[in-house]
Amino acid sequence: MTAYDTNNIFAKILRGEIPAHRVYEDDDAVAFMDVMPQANGHTLVIPKTPSRNILDAAPQTLSRLLPVVQKVAAAAKEAFEADGVTVMQFNEPAAGQTVYHLHFHVIPRVEGQPLKPHSGTMEDQGVLAANAEKLRKALKG
Amino acid sequence: MTAYDTNNIFAKILRGEIPAHRVYEDDDAVAFMDVMPQANGHTLVIPKTPSRNILDAAPQTLSRLLPVVQKVAAAAKEAFEADGVTVMQFNEPAAGQTVYHLHFHVIPRVEGQPLKPHSGTMEDQGVLAANAEKLRKALKG
Repeated sequence: MTAYDTNNIFAKILRGEIPAHRVYEDDDAVAFMDVMPQANGHTLVIPKTPSRNILDAAPQTLSRLLPVVQKVAAAAKEAFEADGVTVMQFNEPAAGQTVYHLHFHVIPRVEGQPLKPHSGTMEDQGVLAANAEKLRKALKG
Repeated sequence: MTAYDTNNIFAKILRGEIPAHRVYEDDDAVAFMDVMPQANGHTLVIPKTPSRNILDAAPQTLSRLLPVVQKVAAAAKEAFEADGVTVMQFNEPAAGQTVYHLHFHVIPRVEGQPLKPHSGTMEDQGVLAANAEKLRKALKG
């Protein structure tokens, strides 16, 4: 297992060195909008404790993280009027991991709309900001 | 949210009414080979407590489940000499859920080999049995 790189982009988001459209934070986790969404409302949930992925995470980190994923999934389904939610978590490059801080993808799904491939294209910041606001409201509600 | 159907196929596996290639069991969870694998070694992890999916699960069920997913992921990476592991969890039909008992897909990934689509074709029982044995060994090791 490769060591954790403290300069990965999510570590920088956690330290506030890079902006993100944050929607949720508690003692253990942070959630923010994915800037290259595979569907409208695509959100990421990450633990504050550093780990590369699920393979090297402390079990206690995982125990605390999944209930946050649940909260975000339920709120995202509501906020984006989705019919379902896809949860994905990738470990190592062969599985599609591109940022090496453990993260869960929470993707609202609408009937008949396939997931978009990873485009490499940034979503419009206005759209992300508006979506973050919708999701924050649903998380409070 | 549709009510939990006690006759879904995973409920039947939990009750022992349908056979499965089980690889792991503890007080909270069971893991067994997916009979329609999207890659060699594709395994499912389910809680014993009934819930339709992540949206209606008790947070405590989720807290106990993810460390089991971790164990199975690490063992599957070893057992199937994989380069990575894809973890997926689908909620409602729009997200690809087809069995309505909460489950995590743990899929060993080999560099350069894309996931197979859901084929609807059952894997050979001998292959599943041999894979289950490999995975049981790695889980003990």
